[in-house]
Amino acid sequence: MTELAIIRDLIIPADTQIALLVLDGLGGLPVEAGGPTALEAARSPNLDRLAAEGAVGLHEPVGPGITPGSGPGHLALFGYDPLRFQIGRGVLEALGIGFDLREGDLAARGNFCTVDADGNITDRRAGRISTQVATELCAALDAIELPGLELFVEVVREHRFLLVLRGDGLEEGITDSDPGSVGRLPRDLVAERPEAQRAAELAGRFVAEARKILAGHEPANMIILRGFARRPAWPLFPDVFGLRSVAVAHYPMYRGVARLLGMETVETGPSVDDLFSALEGAWPDHDFAFAHMKDTDKAGEDGDFDKKVAAIEAVDRSIPKLLSLQPDVIIVTGDHSTPAAFRAHSWHPVPFLLWSSTVRCDSVVSFGERVCQAGAFGLRPAVDLMPLALAHARRLAKFGA
Amino acid sequence: MTELAIIRDLIIPADTQIALLVLDGLGGLPVEAGGPTALEAARSPNLDRLAAEGAVGLHEPVGPGITPGSGPGHLALFGYDPLRFQIGRGVLEALGIGFDLREGDLAARGNFCTVDADGNITDRRAGRISTQVATELCAALDAIELPGLELFVEVVREHRFLLVLRGDGLEEGITDSDPGSVGRLPRDLVAERPEAQRAAELAGRFVAEARKILAGHEPANMIILRGFARRPAWPLFPDVFGLRSVAVAHYPMYRGVARLLGMETVETGPSVDDLFSALEGAWPDHDFAFAHMKDTDKAGEDGDFDKKVAAIEAVDRSIPKLLSLQPDVIIVTGDHSTPAAFRAHSWHPVPFLLWSSTVRCDSVVSFGERVCQAGAFGLRPAVDLMPLALAHARRLAKFGA
Repeated sequence: MTELAIIRDLIIPADTQIALLVLDGLGGLPVEAGGPTALEAARSPNLDRLAAEGAVGLHEPVGPGITPGSGPGHLALFGYDPLRFQIGRGVLEALGIGFDLREGDLAARGNFCTVDADGNITDRRAGRISTQVATELCAALDAIELPGLELFVEVVREHRFLLVLRGDGLEEGITDSDPGSVGRLPRDLVAERPEAQRAAELAGRFVAEARKILAGHEPANMIILRGFARRPAWPLFPDVFGLRSVAVAHYPMYRGVARLLGMETVETGPSVDDLFSALEGAWPDHDFAFAHMKDTDKAGEDGDFDKKVAAIEAVDRSIPKLLSLQPDVIIVTGDHSTPAAFRAHSWHPVPFLLWSSTVRCDSVVSFGERVCQAGAFGLRPAVDLMPLALAHARRLAKFGA
Repeated sequence: MTELAIIRDLIIPADTQIALLVLDGLGGLPVEAGGPTALEAARSPNLDRLAAEGAVGLHEPVGPGITPGSGPGHLALFGYDPLRFQIGRGVLEALGIGFDLREGDLAARGNFCTVDADGNITDRRAGRISTQVATELCAALDAIELPGLELFVEVVREHRFLLVLRGDGLEEGITDSDPGSVGRLPRDLVAERPEAQRAAELAGRFVAEARKILAGHEPANMIILRGFARRPAWPLFPDVFGLRSVAVAHYPMYRGVARLLGMETVETGPSVDDLFSALEGAWPDHDFAFAHMKDTDKAGEDGDFDKKVAAIEAVDRSIPKLLSLQPDVIIVTGDHSTPAAFRAHSWHPVPFLLWSSTVRCDSVVSFGERVCQAGAFGLRPAVDLMPLALAHARRLAKFGA
């Protein structure tokens, strides 16, 4: 893994364009021992052509054996070591619902919960109340006023919500009020460092007000908060890599992570056609375009192998559209594996292909987990992909003389 | 390589069991160019079956080109970076003879040596005196009394012995008295930091007493000491990985390293049957069992290729016993290579196989150095094996959301 600062110093301008196509949760496992994975089972002549003309490999997004969440998986693809660049829970929650988190905002993940007459938590999820009920309760909490603060309470889904405090001097470093198990009182919000004192006090007052408002609204008669975090001040992707960059995605989470890194974003409709049309629209003004397709992951999470195969085939049919844009470098990969057999993300390495006129071809002529083991790029950390993309796009200078 | 602290934070409980079977010095080289290694030459249908049903790779225990000692090789397999977690020479010596080193004990490696009339060393190994003679001399030195200290002098083999000082306030940081070459006086034992002053003085008095006792016992008329070290206070394996862990081994060194990391230990007889019987006995109460087989390394050190082949075949015949325990994850590997052609440890990468229902199979259907190069796990540091074992045992939570 090469430090971002090293890469940044090597960046040179070039009139080349890079397309990063992410099929979420692309990697998989066979349904039966010895059988194909979804990617291996899919009829994908266009992806196979890219693999044949390019070179392939496998990547581990976070580390060996570690199952990546969506945030870390994408950070790694963007070249940011996810063990070093960790996004706080509150910020991730904001990204997930497309909340426009500003510099200095303090965000937390909230749960509606149930407490008994003594205040002890009896259900950390308030019986998983409906999103509709939660929306009404969030509106009530959103009306809470705190001196010198703007305050946002946004429903996420069911018992989950986002709290954002906006104002001056709200520092990170507040403990969680969620005790993590039932039978206990919600914990006080405590400042872990002096600078966070004001934020802890204000958040504490919010909780006290929320308790009054929710009294009698069983099962959602209290809240617990965790993961207080501010938008991180990281080196921005367009600055580090010298790329006019755009993220094209249907889901807010993926646009949100890209926006956090300073990329422009384009919201698309849900279909593969929508995605490639939006990509086509954004293409002329950018050097780097990240296009995100969620269906593969959803099918994996649903345990639907055939649907995952179909999702891959749908993308395959659109590859000619991508080629018609005449990118100089194409990378096709996933942010992690989501085997249908697991109905969940997994740690298994993710296949990738890199297509470019500057690539050294290998002998692999199709795209799949097992053939990628024999690929020219080997098995490597996902953070290596950006330097490789830049090199193939002739955007990295020689190191040393 | 992922920090232990990261892995520890991801540990989740599961009702799964991991078996780590170490064939010491497993990796090898052909006797003649183009020929098979011992592992490749061995008829090992059961290991081949595990390789076929699982996936394989190669690991480097310490680093590229670095020949591991037994301690570092095993630390790496247990997930502890051997470059960071270094065991002092004195402590290794204690582990090797099964000395029960306690917290606060200060251990050193000793040599009987020969000095001339001026006190200059003429032979750093006292003519490699017999173990029997050394045992008598150790008994004499063991009778030395120092104020406020308990003191142990234990023979290791030939001219080598272990010195342990037990008492309060014995700190590390004492220079070696062994000058490393002949023709010089033994060096004074000097404290490298103020805290070690007391220990240096007491050790110095021990040396002075030893000189008096050994006078006239040529060739063993003096001692030299090196590698003063205390038992390290490292994170314990069962705590870091959340595994009830047991080490099953015939040799004290391997039980010793495991005990240093907080594993339980079971001493076995010398045969492969003894080993697997002991493993079977320990299995029900543990989540992780490390079983150590020495014969492969001994054959390699003896330069006996055929004996190494036979040792591998003997283990192979016992694999059905291991399978009958129904482990969820099996790893078979070595702690380093010991090519018979070298009669010594070597730096060559060590083949490993991981068998589990959660593994992504590769196309490799036998177990050997060269086929492992095409394995799904690739070539990687040995410290990656524990996170991979935990992942396949479903004992690691997702990283981030």
